[in-house]
Amino acid sequence: MTDPRTGKNLTECDSFTKLSSHALVQPSRELTAERVNSCDVDAGGGLRFNYAASCVNDAMLADLEALCDEQKLHDQYQTLYEGGIMNVGEDRLVLHHLLRGRLGSSVSVDGTDIGAFYREQTERVAAFARAVHAGEIVGSTGKQFRTVVQIGIGGSDLGPRALAIALQGYAHTRHGHPRMQADFISNVDPDDAARVLANFDPETTLFVLVSKSGTTQETLTNELFAIELMERYEISGLAPRKHMVAVTSRTSPLAKSSEYLDAFFIDDYIGGRYSGTSPVGGVVLSLAFGPEIFEELLSGAHEADSSATRPFVENAAMIDAAIGVYNRNVLGLPTTAVLPYSNALTRFPAHLQQLDMESNGKRVNRRGEAVSYPTGPVVFGEPGTNGQHSFYQLLHQGTDIIPLQFIGFRESQRGDDISVDGSTSQTKLNANLAAQIGAFAFGQDHENRNRAFPGNRPSTLIYGKQLTPRALGALLAHFENKVMFQGFLWNINSFDQEGVQLGKVLTKNILSGGEVNPAMEAYTKLLGLR
Amino acid sequence: MTDPRTGKNLTECDSFTKLSSHALVQPSRELTAERVNSCDVDAGGGLRFNYAASCVNDAMLADLEALCDEQKLHDQYQTLYEGGIMNVGEDRLVLHHLLRGRLGSSVSVDGTDIGAFYREQTERVAAFARAVHAGEIVGSTGKQFRTVVQIGIGGSDLGPRALAIALQGYAHTRHGHPRMQADFISNVDPDDAARVLANFDPETTLFVLVSKSGTTQETLTNELFAIELMERYEISGLAPRKHMVAVTSRTSPLAKSSEYLDAFFIDDYIGGRYSGTSPVGGVVLSLAFGPEIFEELLSGAHEADSSATRPFVENAAMIDAAIGVYNRNVLGLPTTAVLPYSNALTRFPAHLQQLDMESNGKRVNRRGEAVSYPTGPVVFGEPGTNGQHSFYQLLHQGTDIIPLQFIGFRESQRGDDISVDGSTSQTKLNANLAAQIGAFAFGQDHENRNRAFPGNRPSTLIYGKQLTPRALGALLAHFENKVMFQGFLWNINSFDQEGVQLGKVLTKNILSGGEVNPAMEAYTKLLGLR
Repeated sequence: MTDPRTGKNLTECDSFTKLSSHALVQPSRELTAERVNSCDVDAGGGLRFNYAASCVNDAMLADLEALCDEQKLHDQYQTLYEGGIMNVGEDRLVLHHLLRGRLGSSVSVDGTDIGAFYREQTERVAAFARAVHAGEIVGSTGKQFRTVVQIGIGGSDLGPRALAIALQGYAHTRHGHPRMQADFISNVDPDDAARVLANFDPETTLFVLVSKSGTTQETLTNELFAIELMERYEISGLAPRKHMVAVTSRTSPLAKSSEYLDAFFIDDYIGGRYSGTSPVGGVVLSLAFGPEIFEELLSGAHEADSSATRPFVENAAMIDAAIGVYNRNVLGLPTTAVLPYSNALTRFPAHLQQLDMESNGKRVNRRGEAVSYPTGPVVFGEPGTNGQHSFYQLLHQGTDIIPLQFIGFRESQRGDDISVDGSTSQTKLNANLAAQIGAFAFGQDHENRNRAFPGNRPSTLIYGKQLTPRALGALLAHFENKVMFQGFLWNINSFDQEGVQLGKVLTKNILSGGEVNPAMEAYTKLLGLR
Repeated sequence: MTDPRTGKNLTECDSFTKLSSHALVQPSRELTAERVNSCDVDAGGGLRFNYAASCVNDAMLADLEALCDEQKLHDQYQTLYEGGIMNVGEDRLVLHHLLRGRLGSSVSVDGTDIGAFYREQTERVAAFARAVHAGEIVGSTGKQFRTVVQIGIGGSDLGPRALAIALQGYAHTRHGHPRMQADFISNVDPDDAARVLANFDPETTLFVLVSKSGTTQETLTNELFAIELMERYEISGLAPRKHMVAVTSRTSPLAKSSEYLDAFFIDDYIGGRYSGTSPVGGVVLSLAFGPEIFEELLSGAHEADSSATRPFVENAAMIDAAIGVYNRNVLGLPTTAVLPYSNALTRFPAHLQQLDMESNGKRVNRRGEAVSYPTGPVVFGEPGTNGQHSFYQLLHQGTDIIPLQFIGFRESQRGDDISVDGSTSQTKLNANLAAQIGAFAFGQDHENRNRAFPGNRPSTLIYGKQLTPRALGALLAHFENKVMFQGFLWNINSFDQEGVQLGKVLTKNILSGGEVNPAMEAYTKLLGLR
């Protein structure tokens, strides 16, 4: 097994020095139909990754492969899924891949087979969802549950919410309608809970409380808020906590309560932002769409995980990661835009923003030393074609170059479409996508400089037939694995998040009336606190 | 009047050369309670702008004032609202301020008083909304309209949608519930319209079609999609276009049709991303919440517009703009995060992303020459506290410094709150906000470098009592004016968007079977088009 504490910094790699000597490749000069067809690799789950319009030519790709070899990416990935301590800061295993299927050997900790534990929990979630749908498990006043509301924040919110929105159209087509309505409460802002629960039916609503530690301020506050709102209805026999299930670790305060309707467990080896395929996402998605849909999502994710073990030239996640490092560390480009041409992926960029920026927004390597090079970029995005009428102006004609990650599907989710002027909306959508890739690569000369486009703005494309649960699972896992490989290349720990701690401590100080820096005290007064 | 064609480039300004000689000020070194209280200016509409935690000290602020003087910001603003041709590329006036109230003299074009025209349209919108609410204007089968669905994209979507979401909680408190449900269709992706219209009632739904040119591909396609979905119900007497009003320019194809229930007009002097306070936002907001709420929004915006005429040291929008240019052009920081501690502002960052990046994502000055310095930054953001559990990791401990724009309010919108552990959720929300400003400024030493925070990460704060329509209008206008002033400082045209054109042309080529670059042709095949 590779010991992550012995990893090299990026700038210590001979292959990186060689890479840095490459001149910037201009996508427009390289981009031919042959290249579009050859720079195209399977990404698992029916998806493909196309990097023809990136800045990387064959020679650079060979050097990037050498870099991935020098940084032992395949070994590190294997160490991770075989149960090595890859989260060095927190001295933990990193096992979210095991949620989706087994790569390599089984993993045991203190005699417990972790894969068996995860499978058991997934099966418990499926059985629970089936019993709720069948009306075998009902609310405390005997009524069937119709709505599920997840209370969680960060990884317990963004991923599950993005996935729930993404599956809405698919479930609509498959079943006529989703099994249960799903909504989410995350923010400690009281307006968030008040909005979601403005007109809720306390008898038919099931809450999913998600907090691994069982101590998250926002989530516990919103739990009590939900209970208070339920109690206001003064419904005889209503027992609020019997309308709640917990998703938490086995040792948390939530797990110890017998007041909840049920509890499902995760452990410390599943990071919040990697927990969409655990019960953190599984309970709400299985209730909303059915456990069979969640199973398809898991199998798609496992296909992508498996594809990430392949040799570099066939490894979509690794090539994607390597191109990202080239953009960041050779070209010096500080941001990346994610542009899904699928309205179902409306909140997917917000999930990727957390996944990427929380994983790789680090300035210290795995030996605890400051690194001298840039690590994780700023990630942002909105669906196309909406973005085209918004921030694409800067992407085309701004002073900075922003590498682009396009996502597209040949077919719509719902299949409900209209033909106008000889083409369907889905065709128009994808014509826009192809046109944008071309416009960014080739640009356009014009004697009026205000109408000229410099072009040579690099992009990649992930595409598939349709945004099915399987494709969605693969898409999720592709980006998780890309981010993981980039962490290996940068020699940083992509699995902790110490950067969230200081704000929590200072907030507690303010709320408890403890000693606070005078300037911060002055801000609390501006904000009406003291 | 100032002629924008005679403007100087930023790097031609003596005061900019002087500014560039300043060393980086570390917020932690400067940030005292006295500074928090003194670096605090009125922004109009009951809002205040606090720049104590920015990178700018008194000496630099004086130099920034000199820069704003040298670039004649007050004169340029006056020229703009007095009707100068400030959109030089398109040879147009820029008159969105006139929608909210009159600054300076009246503006006439070809003998028409433009202010009177705008007021007339606003009054027509208000009268229409009142008649719909009163049941005097009803659907074609005689039923009262209950739902309003806006069909528009870009500026016809992001601003109005962000404002509608932001006012939901306020309207809920004021009226018990909004007057009408509001939803939005924007994307040409057929799944967008299919989702919104999955279970709609064609008899009680009123569509607002928004396209200034009357030729926007996405909007016209979605209009026909909505009509087809209405016709599928086969309701006797149902006349789909009598369930539609148009918001467009007087010369557009939409304006010429008598088929619509009604039409409201804007003109070429209102850019899409600046049109939230025109009928583009006014129709849907007046229908959803009542014209009196929209009037309050306009008056808040006008207060902010008026405050932007003040001397530099009392001018929130100008100071904000100047600090942004310092961050971008002196410190070389390429991104800005907008972080509202108000869940009602969930989609406000997406609007600002368009406003800022489409306005100032330009590489050519107002004389049509390439500029040698960076212009508009990448703008992104999500509400706090959600972001704290997501991308804040990178903001705190990443390798790059991201300037932050915080937004906060002393009171929640709905007033529905809960006290847990001795504090309300609203208090917790703002304790988090104050703690974050402190954490970013001061950081924290730690012997374990992984738990150390470098601090000295600059921020500003816009705050007020409550997110009322008046405060929301002021917030909208503050950022519009900030972006405008930055455009003046950079000597670029913030009011055109030539960068969106190339993609449109290439899309048309693909759809019409015209000649297309072979690589782009290869992409269309991957995406299932040919």
